[in-house]
Amino acid sequence: MVPRLWNETIEEHRGAVRDAVLDAAAALVAEHGLTAVTMSKIAERTGIGRATLYKYFPDIEAILLAWHERQIAGHLQHLAAAREHGGDAQARLAAVLEVYALNSRQRHGGELAAMLHQSSHTAAAHERLVDFVRDLLAEAVTAGTVRRDVPSAELAAYCLSALSAARTLPSDASVRRLVTVTLAGLRPAS
Amino acid sequence: MVPRLWNETIEEHRGAVRDAVLDAAAALVAEHGLTAVTMSKIAERTGIGRATLYKYFPDIEAILLAWHERQIAGHLQHLAAAREHGGDAQARLAAVLEVYALNSRQRHGGELAAMLHQSSHTAAAHERLVDFVRDLLAEAVTAGTVRRDVPSAELAAYCLSALSAARTLPSDASVRRLVTVTLAGLRPAS
Repeated sequence: MVPRLWNETIEEHRGAVRDAVLDAAAALVAEHGLTAVTMSKIAERTGIGRATLYKYFPDIEAILLAWHERQIAGHLQHLAAAREHGGDAQARLAAVLEVYALNSRQRHGGELAAMLHQSSHTAAAHERLVDFVRDLLAEAVTAGTVRRDVPSAELAAYCLSALSAARTLPSDASVRRLVTVTLAGLRPAS
Repeated sequence: MVPRLWNETIEEHRGAVRDAVLDAAAALVAEHGLTAVTMSKIAERTGIGRATLYKYFPDIEAILLAWHERQIAGHLQHLAAAREHGGDAQARLAAVLEVYALNSRQRHGGELAAMLHQSSHTAAAHERLVDFVRDLLAEAVTAGTVRRDVPSAELAAYCLSALSAARTLPSDASVRRLVTVTLAGLRPAS
């Protein structure tokens, strides 16, 4: 059900409907798998009429792409929040990498990931992420806490690849060790 | 054409035919893409009759899987050779990681990779690779050149993930920098 529609503006209403549709689709995928999700089931679960649903999204794929975009935006907001939590350049870098790695552990896998990761918006989101980390690294290079013998863009690729191992790790403690090792690779060559 | 069949044993003959089929399939995929490869084209290119070809492989997928298994075996042999090239535990580790990273740059991508990487033999090969690197790391831990505050299996996952960034790097020089940074992460905590 879409809550509290009556005293919201139309724009807010539309946002709430969209969000409810994306939530329902994600829940249905989690419960029954990708192929079991239909427009009818999403309509039923949200309490939105099928005709209305089709005014928002032409098909399941559009819904899942929109859901994925919302997930990515949420991840980037978490990373931006971790950066704002302050400290010096090195502390900000460490905080962002830890949030990224811990998030990676909970990320979706399997057939849905395979479908979504082919899409161009995923590539664009990955580029934004690389740029975000590269900027943090450049600040830490200036502060003298990160090595300056390797270009920041290459260090960003190293960080994100290294931390992708978080997906296979069994615990948050092991993910934190991974972040420690990854940060150690960034230290200025002695 | 399959060369020098006549004075080989039957087993060698079969091996040569298999290799010729795998080479032809890989060449056809590289030239025309995955969907353009057919059993007829492979028969034509190798000079093997279609009926004979079907005695070796039931379909294209079986051929591509066999080709991929051969590629993986070749990669693992390269890594084993790099390990044998000697020096101490740290030198062997560094040599193996460099060969792995440089190989990664040339690895296949796209639709073929997507198909092959779903298969169970790829998962098994990845496990063998992780074990191989973990053993090298354990030797270096004993030698005192790699940190002992993180389990070797986690360090192996870190190494292989970090070096997978090689795929996106523009040059062998940038890959060597990636190896340097990755190795720096492994140093004993000071």
